Amino acid sequence: MGVEAVLAVVLAISLLSLAVAFFLARQVLAADRGKPEMEAIAAAIREGAEAFLSRQYRTIGGLSVVAAAVIFGFYYLNRSVPNIAEMGRGTAVKVTLSFVVGALCSAIAGYIGMFVSIRANLRTAAAAMTSLNKALQIAIRGGAVSGLTVVSMSLLGVGGLFYLFGGAHDYEHVPLQIVGFGFGASFVALFAQLGGGIYTKAADVGADLVGKVEAGIPEDDPRNPAVIADLVGDNVGDCAGRGADLFESTAAENVGAMILGVALYPVFGMGGIVFPLLARAFGLIATIVGVFTVHCREDEDPMNALNRGYLVTTVIAMAGFAAAVFLLLRPAPDAGVEVHRGYLLFAGIIGILTAYAFVWITQYYTEYRYRPVRSIAEASKTGPATNIISGLAVGFECTGLPVLVISAALMGAYWCGKQALGDMTGAGLYGTAIATMGMLAPCAYILAMDTFGPITDNAGGIIEMSKQPEEIRHKTDRLDSVGNTTKALTKGYAIGSAALAAFLLFSAYLGEVTKITGLKMAVDLTRVPVFVGGLLGATLVFVFSALAIKAVGKAAQVVIAEVRRQFRENPGIMKGTAKPDYARCVDIVTAAALREMVVPGLLAVLTPVAVGFGFRFLSPYGQIGAESVAALLMVGTIAGILMATVMNNGGGAWDNAKKYIESGEFKVDGQVVGKRSEAHKAAVVGDTVGDPFKDTAGPSLHVLIKLLSTITLVLAPLFIR
Amino acid sequence: MGVEAVLAVVLAISLLSLAVAFFLARQVLAADRGKPEMEAIAAAIREGAEAFLSRQYRTIGGLSVVAAAVIFGFYYLNRSVPNIAEMGRGTAVKVTLSFVVGALCSAIAGYIGMFVSIRANLRTAAAAMTSLNKALQIAIRGGAVSGLTVVSMSLLGVGGLFYLFGGAHDYEHVPLQIVGFGFGASFVALFAQLGGGIYTKAADVGADLVGKVEAGIPEDDPRNPAVIADLVGDNVGDCAGRGADLFESTAAENVGAMILGVALYPVFGMGGIVFPLLARAFGLIATIVGVFTVHCREDEDPMNALNRGYLVTTVIAMAGFAAAVFLLLRPAPDAGVEVHRGYLLFAGIIGILTAYAFVWITQYYTEYRYRPVRSIAEASKTGPATNIISGLAVGFECTGLPVLVISAALMGAYWCGKQALGDMTGAGLYGTAIATMGMLAPCAYILAMDTFGPITDNAGGIIEMSKQPEEIRHKTDRLDSVGNTTKALTKGYAIGSAALAAFLLFSAYLGEVTKITGLKMAVDLTRVPVFVGGLLGATLVFVFSALAIKAVGKAAQVVIAEVRRQFRENPGIMKGTAKPDYARCVDIVTAAALREMVVPGLLAVLTPVAVGFGFRFLSPYGQIGAESVAALLMVGTIAGILMATVMNNGGGAWDNAKKYIESGEFKVDGQVVGKRSEAHKAAVVGDTVGDPFKDTAGPSLHVLIKLLSTITLVLAPLFIR
Repeated sequence: MGVEAVLAVVLAISLLSLAVAFFLARQVLAADRGKPEMEAIAAAIREGAEAFLSRQYRTIGGLSVVAAAVIFGFYYLNRSVPNIAEMGRGTAVKVTLSFVVGALCSAIAGYIGMFVSIRANLRTAAAAMTSLNKALQIAIRGGAVSGLTVVSMSLLGVGGLFYLFGGAHDYEHVPLQIVGFGFGASFVALFAQLGGGIYTKAADVGADLVGKVEAGIPEDDPRNPAVIADLVGDNVGDCAGRGADLFESTAAENVGAMILGVALYPVFGMGGIVFPLLARAFGLIATIVGVFTVHCREDEDPMNALNRGYLVTTVIAMAGFAAAVFLLLRPAPDAGVEVHRGYLLFAGIIGILTAYAFVWITQYYTEYRYRPVRSIAEASKTGPATNIISGLAVGFECTGLPVLVISAALMGAYWCGKQALGDMTGAGLYGTAIATMGMLAPCAYILAMDTFGPITDNAGGIIEMSKQPEEIRHKTDRLDSVGNTTKALTKGYAIGSAALAAFLLFSAYLGEVTKITGLKMAVDLTRVPVFVGGLLGATLVFVFSALAIKAVGKAAQVVIAEVRRQFRENPGIMKGTAKPDYARCVDIVTAAALREMVVPGLLAVLTPVAVGFGFRFLSPYGQIGAESVAALLMVGTIAGILMATVMNNGGGAWDNAKKYIESGEFKVDGQVVGKRSEAHKAAVVGDTVGDPFKDTAGPSLHVLIKLLSTITLVLAPLFIR
Repeated sequence: MGVEAVLAVVLAISLLSLAVAFFLARQVLAADRGKPEMEAIAAAIREGAEAFLSRQYRTIGGLSVVAAAVIFGFYYLNRSVPNIAEMGRGTAVKVTLSFVVGALCSAIAGYIGMFVSIRANLRTAAAAMTSLNKALQIAIRGGAVSGLTVVSMSLLGVGGLFYLFGGAHDYEHVPLQIVGFGFGASFVALFAQLGGGIYTKAADVGADLVGKVEAGIPEDDPRNPAVIADLVGDNVGDCAGRGADLFESTAAENVGAMILGVALYPVFGMGGIVFPLLARAFGLIATIVGVFTVHCREDEDPMNALNRGYLVTTVIAMAGFAAAVFLLLRPAPDAGVEVHRGYLLFAGIIGILTAYAFVWITQYYTEYRYRPVRSIAEASKTGPATNIISGLAVGFECTGLPVLVISAALMGAYWCGKQALGDMTGAGLYGTAIATMGMLAPCAYILAMDTFGPITDNAGGIIEMSKQPEEIRHKTDRLDSVGNTTKALTKGYAIGSAALAAFLLFSAYLGEVTKITGLKMAVDLTRVPVFVGGLLGATLVFVFSALAIKAVGKAAQVVIAEVRRQFRENPGIMKGTAKPDYARCVDIVTAAALREMVVPGLLAVLTPVAVGFGFRFLSPYGQIGAESVAALLMVGTIAGILMATVMNNGGGAWDNAKKYIESGEFKVDGQVVGKRSEAHKAAVVGDTVGDPFKDTAGPSLHVLIKLLSTITLVLAPLFIR
């Protein structure tokens, strides 16, 4: 296949997917909207979410303009430096343009995902009044809008820029010029995930501490002034934030894989460069088929239906992946090497299996059927202290299995690459890149399952607040609990793919540096400045987590003060005679979350820049800036993978230990106990501690890892003298 | 100075220090032992501690015999492999002998420290009945016995083996043969610290949860059956454990520095190899002088007195260090290089300053005069969940400053090395080695301050349990609170020196590998197997922490069950008419702690071995075992430094947030509150969570870091094909 033909197919599939997303969105919007009181609640959520997003985008927009100006300035002022002159004319404009397009696409992807989810919630609630299957389908199709949009926009962006900059002719420089796209995407994703994550947990903790604990009213009670803010939070944190997160995963990974393809140009020609685009496009088709197969019987566990769809998606994606391998990864006639393509396909399968393994491990550590969550519930019997100790122990412990899986996957894929390509430089690395692409093939479907979470959570909230009958509540509860599971799984998947993709991005970075300096790049930890770079990278992860957690605490304080004020100044609220001022709470959390997201965000962006330039100019260590930054990136990634796993799984385990105690299966001294028992109180403490872990710090760390890669990729030419 | 003369001076100073330690011990033992009821309590503590130690040593002894046999077997079976044959005849015996001597010395050092502290506690209590100064002096002199013994035994061990194996003639091979000494020391230290740490916190948590929370009796109440076990725990965890920990720090660092000296033999001749021994010996003299200057007025803060002694020690140690630099670090006449010794001295000063910086940072994060602890106390107002969130945030955040200090110290010392030695290979590294030696120069005094902690803690317990008058209790309380501070400072110092020493040990390991293979060794993270090694190293730290924390929980459950049983079966205990069965509690914690220490200990020992051999034999990665293990070691060290800082400082901050609320300075809504307030209850939860952090996992991580270095040093020849 010629490169133009491949690009045409990729663009066609992307546009088709957008059309399908549009069709799904129309289908969801056309569905029944239920009773007027439900509509009123949904409208309040919608307004709050849109108000937050528009203010957040204004802040992020301002920061992005500054970042774009800085990038342009750096490249333009250094345009005569050989590193950059080498990249061709107009590089400054092209890199900056890529950044802006990446940032814009990321923002649009986040917005579209949320646009649908804050409308699908009401339709899901309404559908649940007649049929579980209908509700399930509306929720997953609403989620699919997000999934399909995110992935096809990332393809359109990367493919489009590649075409626009003339990549088919200037294959060597164009991938380096579009690294800005990945950076733009991660820049927006970092702030979107941080801001959304802080918002959602500040509202949640604030609503719970004053509502449930002080005033003694149940969750989602309409008398709680912060309840709408809480429901808004699910959308801005999970939809908009995670949408931006996975947009940048796919974008950064596409760019990284293309750069690696450039290194293998002598072998595969253009085929190796456009391969990632085609493999991803086939994944979109797989997702479309998978989503349409989702349906369940009224008495069935909806999780089974989603799992069936996942299986269908995976099988088709694998077939597409195999087709892409055999179509594009053929050695050029004059390359004079033999390529064993079966091994490349096998590397892809390793990626897919890794995704499955992560999903399974996440379930093991976060579901109450298994030992870890039960051990936390047991420890709750002796109070909050033992609950916390045991939850932290589970969190730290649960890094072991995922790391063994990642290690095995990396080594296995590396081996496959060597088998496929022989002793060629970069052969093993290319194997790991293929595995990453395999893991990300069903990405759109995973994202659909993720967005399913806030849609069903909101549907439950709408049913509860509008006081619908018990049996309907029961249906939305079932969907909601499936949503909790899918959200946890997605996080496992996101961290697994970030870990694999990291290696791809390292390689791209190192390849770029090698291209510039002409020297083989090593990241040798035995050199003191390089070791210090690594030490700083790991520390960045720890301090960033601390700041993210503290931000939630500070923003929650503001919510608590406001809810207390409303209860105090308007006694009618608690009696149910006056409506609380929901909008003011939404406003206040918005302002607080946006204020608090800036410091951790800037820390993440500025640390690699400071290390790169600092070490570049420090006299005795000339030319070592790039290497120290690489160590920062790599050791930071290791620490980030571990810490994110601790946060995500620890938080999930605490949450479900509480749910286990509420489930009616938990016994103390042979007696079943539940809510209001001492053990439950202890478990609530653990759940509250876990909230900022799993919904703010953890997901933000995924983005941080990839941001480190993309920012270093963009600035690499400037770290070298 | 000739090498024999230096060795003679070193041995003489070591023996002198042992004599001083003996004299101090006799002085302490001869002091007044107070009232018979106090003696009875002290006797119970003594018996419990000795029973624990003897059983622990039996377990560790068994493990050590196995380890020694394995080491001997490895070396003997591979004796004809070039790597090992190269090291000279009798290497298997010499390495194994070094291991055994190191293990023995470590055990003896721990035992002697504890022997004195479990006797000094009673004498300190008795002295407090007449004079604060006398009590202070007994406690610090009791601590000095431990400090002097530990450091002089490590000197005697390393110097003696060096002499015995003929190091003056075979300088190239002997340091490689005595690496076993460091490994033996860390092997014992790991289990001693783990077992002691689990014991002390299991007893503490168990005694508190049943005594304070369930039965509502105060701390150190004689009716609590676990109270003696709790007091025993302070000795076995802090004295014996920390003694073994710092013994191995100094031993490993001595060996590492000597190996680095071998690399610089062409420059400094034998002077460079024996330099670490002489510098350390001068540090002993400084400590002796420092300890004898400690005295305080009755109305003075005893901490000031200890700080004055520290200052005296530091100044003298610096002078000795300078003398050692100018005596021994002279270029050999035929070396043909110029050495700027002023820069080497300056590197040593950087080390001393680093020690000061760590002490200051630890105070900032753990004392309630400062913002971090106050923020945790503030967060306690809204309950245990916010207390925990804010404590964890402080813990993660407080990694930032220490890492910046370490980074600056490493870079600064590296620069000094380059300035002193020019562009010679290893010049920068030697600078960092000198800095490490500078930091460890006042080590014996620091250790004396550390052991001061459990002595005064026990003295307080004895006064309380034997119901002495309020004013005496007040004096021991003041000493106890100083002891808490010194314990926290020592941990900061230990982690800082571990971080600096790590680089020294890396270099020794790499130097050894280079010597064997003849290739320059790099640890290049861009190679997949090397990156995987690093990933596994960081994960080891996380999983090890989880296991250590869980071990405390499990052992505490056993204590809780036993205390409950005694209360239930013998109602006379609570009425005060019957004596509880203290010994049974002691027995039970002993058995549980020893059982629980095995799994995390073995994990730590076996992981580097498994990675080294696994990667050695994995076919496509021949010869990369050593490099992957080096990555495991380095990235594991980075993660270990960070995690230990989180655990130590987070735990200390939680502890002092509780103390702040008890202090009478803490206000809620303008009202002073204290014990029994809601905020205090929340703070108690945080304190309990922090206990296994700061006294089990944190200190064990210090040892883990150094164990990784020494085990890889010993096994290096076996990781290379």
